[in-house]
Amino acid sequence: MDKEFLKIIKSELDLIETTLKNYLDSQHPFINQVSEYIIFSGGKRIRPLLTVLSAKLFLSEDLDSNYLETIYRTSILFEYLHAATLLHDDVVDSAEFRRGRKAARNIWGNQATILVGDYLYAKALRLASLLENIKIMDVITQTTLLMSEGEVLQLLNLDNFFLTEAQYEEVIFRKTAVLISACCEVGAILGGADERECLLLKDFGKYLGLAFQIVDDLLDYLSEETGKDLGKDFKEGKVTLPVIYALKIASEEEKNTLLNLLKMPDTNKKDFETAKKIIEKNKGFTKSKERAKHYINLAKNCLKNLPNNLYKDLLIFISDYLLERKK
Amino acid sequence: MDKEFLKIIKSELDLIETTLKNYLDSQHPFINQVSEYIIFSGGKRIRPLLTVLSAKLFLSEDLDSNYLETIYRTSILFEYLHAATLLHDDVVDSAEFRRGRKAARNIWGNQATILVGDYLYAKALRLASLLENIKIMDVITQTTLLMSEGEVLQLLNLDNFFLTEAQYEEVIFRKTAVLISACCEVGAILGGADERECLLLKDFGKYLGLAFQIVDDLLDYLSEETGKDLGKDFKEGKVTLPVIYALKIASEEEKNTLLNLLKMPDTNKKDFETAKKIIEKNKGFTKSKERAKHYINLAKNCLKNLPNNLYKDLLIFISDYLLERKK
Repeated sequence: MDKEFLKIIKSELDLIETTLKNYLDSQHPFINQVSEYIIFSGGKRIRPLLTVLSAKLFLSEDLDSNYLETIYRTSILFEYLHAATLLHDDVVDSAEFRRGRKAARNIWGNQATILVGDYLYAKALRLASLLENIKIMDVITQTTLLMSEGEVLQLLNLDNFFLTEAQYEEVIFRKTAVLISACCEVGAILGGADERECLLLKDFGKYLGLAFQIVDDLLDYLSEETGKDLGKDFKEGKVTLPVIYALKIASEEEKNTLLNLLKMPDTNKKDFETAKKIIEKNKGFTKSKERAKHYINLAKNCLKNLPNNLYKDLLIFISDYLLERKK
Repeated sequence: MDKEFLKIIKSELDLIETTLKNYLDSQHPFINQVSEYIIFSGGKRIRPLLTVLSAKLFLSEDLDSNYLETIYRTSILFEYLHAATLLHDDVVDSAEFRRGRKAARNIWGNQATILVGDYLYAKALRLASLLENIKIMDVITQTTLLMSEGEVLQLLNLDNFFLTEAQYEEVIFRKTAVLISACCEVGAILGGADERECLLLKDFGKYLGLAFQIVDDLLDYLSEETGKDLGKDFKEGKVTLPVIYALKIASEEEKNTLLNLLKMPDTNKKDFETAKKIIEKNKGFTKSKERAKHYINLAKNCLKNLPNNLYKDLLIFISDYLLERKK
């Protein structure tokens, strides 16, 4: 069964990939070049995939090809939005690397990176407006507003080593969950779902997004990938859920060691391993994983009373995959 | 008559000022603080003013107060959009000053400035979507896309000392005229204008915007204000219309001197005066002024066949003012 699912997902991803390429159509080659660099840098395409599957969950199989095109075109706007935030994040964080290769700002400089970020953002909104759908525009503008406020909050929290779990969840809600929630809600709207169903998909996306970011933050410590991204949060002194949980029950000595390591401007591999050991010993990783699992369960619960079909199975399959992924 | 006009404009500006303040309503004081700093830094409010007047041009005097509120709320989104581009521009240009005082980035740093710029952009789009008007969303998303591409183009042209007049006009079209055009077109839509009338207001705004930027670039050399902004373009080595015209007829020696001065990383007051003299002698200023006048005439021409009323007179009055202003 998994093999069958993976095959279908693969074919959806191929269509998304083609669509992503087709709509990067600025008349100015430089804009396309920088955009393509960030868009085609090995992203998982989870956002557009969720939009497509959420739409198809409510649609019959024999769809008008024009409407299918509309669905894919809309799905990619979330990838453009996401890419825009990555470009600005990298400038804000002075990031050297992104997904194991040079960050765009490291090639074209901060100036171009800021402005191409603005371009991708504008492009996403432009694609949204082509739908001429007031409800979708409402979801998307609300989403971008929440996200942009969240980015500022995250910046203000940068040196807050005593971030609470609630504050952390507020940050990841705005940073990740709001957008993934919008992907699913907009998919449902495109699928012609009724209001109750749209709300369920909105919540499904929210819980999935929270779990997704918690797993991401876990993988920053535990990923099997050994790219330059591993330990990025640690190096930047960013407090994430594993640290928050560990600090709760760690001894005074462990707490001080962990906090000092996080505050250090330059850390090496040994420091990283020391931090990992303290977090591990104080259940930071297992509890984070449990929390992610809790959200995945809430997400799957939202789907319970929705039509039973292939696309529902796929959404559940993806939820489980996002929890168990190793990179 | 002028006094009467100024009085009416003043009362419109007061309403705009209040509305600008009311909608800066982020729950996070820091976001409001940075936003207010850039929004309330002595801007002329020409964009919201044009939206309000363009709407009223087509409306009867006894307007529903809710609808009036909608018009003012919509007008300010253009000021938020404009402020967002200023924040990002200042980061991109490493600007120290803006409108005679410290640039926001000089107080809160590049990071916060980029992110609050994103916030103001999102806020503007959010205000637009509240109208639930597909046509207006279409205008605004098209506008922001053109503008953001233009910003990248401008960056790529930074070291182009042989900018042609056509290239210059493309830059100022995207940088300034597109947004001012949108202000007027959206105003007309809000006023219930028909398609032909909306198009006329769109063109009116475009020509007015082109003239506005040409005058702005002229004032960079000739302003009576002696703030730290004077000669900003010159210091940055930015080629604007006065330089383009002057280079056309200058002697080989003058050409070299002017280009060398523009290319110099550090220039003093004497250099600035030398450049001004070369531009003046080679008609750079007078021809630029003529060009601005040409666009103001085109702008006023667009209004010819529209209803004759106070608001048309005010739009003409403002067009003349923008041409003759000294700062």
